[in-house]
Amino acid sequence: MAKRLIPLFNRILVEKIVPPSKTNAGILLPEKSSKLNSGKVIAVGPGIHSKDGKLIPVAVNEGDTVLLPEYGGTEVKLDNKEYHLYRDDDILGTLHD
Amino acid sequence: MAKRLIPLFNRILVEKIVPPSKTNAGILLPEKSSKLNSGKVIAVGPGIHSKDGKLIPVAVNEGDTVLLPEYGGTEVKLDNKEYHLYRDDDILGTLHD
Amino acid sequence: MAKRLIPLFNRILVEKIVPPSKTNAGILLPEKSSKLNSGKVIAVGPGIHSKDGKLIPVAVNEGDTVLLPEYGGTEVKLDNKEYHLYRDDDILGTLHD
Amino acid sequence: MAKRLIPLFNRILVEKIVPPSKTNAGILLPEKSSKLNSGKVIAVGPGIHSKDGKLIPVAVNEGDTVLLPEYGGTEVKLDNKEYHLYRDDDILGTLHD
Amino acid sequence: MAKRLIPLFNRILVEKIVPPSKTNAGILLPEKSSKLNSGKVIAVGPGIHSKDGKLIPVAVNEGDTVLLPEYGGTEVKLDNKEYHLYRDDDILGTLHD
Amino acid sequence: MAKRLIPLFNRILVEKIVPPSKTNAGILLPEKSSKLNSGKVIAVGPGIHSKDGKLIPVAVNEGDTVLLPEYGGTEVKLDNKEYHLYRDDDILGTLHD
Amino acid sequence: MAKRLIPLFNRILVEKIVPPSKTNAGILLPEKSSKLNSGKVIAVGPGIHSKDGKLIPVAVNEGDTVLLPEYGGTEVKLDNKEYHLYRDDDILGTLHD
Repeated sequence: MAKRLIPLFNRILVEKIVPPSKTNAGILLPEKSSKLNSGKVIAVGPGIHSKDGKLIPVAVNEGDTVLLPEYGGTEVKLDNKEYHLYRDDDILGTLHD
Repeated sequence: MAKRLIPLFNRILVEKIVPPSKTNAGILLPEKSSKLNSGKVIAVGPGIHSKDGKLIPVAVNEGDTVLLPEYGGTEVKLDNKEYHLYRDDDILGTLHD
Repeated sequence: MAKRLIPLFNRILVEKIVPPSKTNAGILLPEKSSKLNSGKVIAVGPGIHSKDGKLIPVAVNEGDTVLLPEYGGTEVKLDNKEYHLYRDDDILGTLHD
Repeated sequence: MAKRLIPLFNRILVEKIVPPSKTNAGILLPEKSSKLNSGKVIAVGPGIHSKDGKLIPVAVNEGDTVLLPEYGGTEVKLDNKEYHLYRDDDILGTLHD
Repeated sequence: MAKRLIPLFNRILVEKIVPPSKTNAGILLPEKSSKLNSGKVIAVGPGIHSKDGKLIPVAVNEGDTVLLPEYGGTEVKLDNKEYHLYRDDDILGTLHD
Repeated sequence: MAKRLIPLFNRILVEKIVPPSKTNAGILLPEKSSKLNSGKVIAVGPGIHSKDGKLIPVAVNEGDTVLLPEYGGTEVKLDNKEYHLYRDDDILGTLHD
Repeated sequence: MAKRLIPLFNRILVEKIVPPSKTNAGILLPEKSSKLNSGKVIAVGPGIHSKDGKLIPVAVNEGDTVLLPEYGGTEVKLDNKEYHLYRDDDILGTLHD
């Protein structure tokens, strides 16, 4: 059974971050509190060619934490873990502390 | 919890300016008075590549006050503050006193 | 309150010319008489990039009198005055005496 | 009141030719006889930029007699005369005796 | 009255060939027999510009016999004769004995 | 009556191969047995121009056996024989023993 | 009967991998267990031309194991074996142990 996926073109493989339902001190977070739809970049494709054939690399790197769009993403199960594939230009931005 | 977002491609992060409901002298402004849908640019992406691979930087800068389109914009909550993400070519212009 | 708007990309800011309802001699002009939908260019954006990254400046200049399309244009109120934003390629032509 | 219009981009200003209803000898021409939808070019725009920024001039010249498409054209009244604006690539061809 | 039309861009002027209803020996041809929708090229436009401004000439020449598509073509009456205008990329091919 | 057609642009002329209903030994082949929708290339066009004007030749050659798409193709009768015209980028591939 | 297909343009020929219904030890796998829609690349086309005529080769190679999209793919029967044709930019990624 395949364990690793190398995305093609400008696709990236993301493992979604499940937002904590409690604070570190164990207090339940309200359902509607600011839950970001974010994830960690596991693997990236080589990028896509511009109209005149130059390769434009993907805009994020492995290990980045990224803000995901509300919709979209293709679910992929690898080694019983769930990932999602996105095109890099659907990713809204990179998240930093 | 992520506190900072660096937009990707030609996206920009904007904090909307809430128009004052009263004048400085405390007089209530009529509901329909000229309320501009504007905001302050918090962060900008690197820009997008032209068809032949040249990077075209984003058209506004951090700190600019910008006139926003009537519709569009993706809401993003960071550190309990509300922001909006726009593509730079949806921004109508920069506002100046 | 912002008083000045610098349009972005190939947008231009126009102040519509209200056609006179009477001739100079005070004679009422018929409703249907040739009323041009025109305006004065107040401010212009820098233009847009061609597919291979060259900046193509806007096709009109501040101060030009322009023939506006029948539809379109985004209304913008600045300093209690009404303006309209257009993309330069929607403008039909420049008017001259 | 503006008397002259210089079209923008690849637009051209045309004055339609009203086909004669009688022959030179005064004989009434049948309604359906070959009436060409044609006009005279009054003014032309500078042309449009190709994808890589080169200016491609308009394909007709002032004074040309042109064959107009069955539909389209924006009506413009200047100095109480009626004209029509077309994009040059909608013009079918130039007419010659 | 105009007698000649020079097409613009990549348009071509064609005079349709009416397929014979009888063989040379006078035998009536069946209605459904292989009737090609073909025509003779009367005049051609200069061609169109590629995205980067090079002029690409029209793909057929005056005098060619061409296979026409089943649909399309703009009817044009010149000097009481009927012609049709096509864009050259709608023409299927050139016919030869 | 025209006997030969030279396709234009990236079109190719194909004569469909009628799959045998019996094996060489005369055994009737089941209706649903693997019948490929294929044909022989009779004539090819010159190809089409890329966006910047370079001619990109057609991807198949006269004499090739090609796998045809399930739909599409324009029927053409020449000299009482039936052919089909395709654009080369609709052809799925070339078939080999 | 043709036995081999060489795809055209950026198409690739894939033989789907039928996921095992039992583990190596013979234990029945649950219906819904992580079954990847994958296949082995049998043959690849030459690639497609960029807008300015450069040939961009296909992104996968013969022998690669690839993750297939949920939908799409054209079924092709060759020598009584079933294959599927995809465009390379529909392929999600390459799978590795």
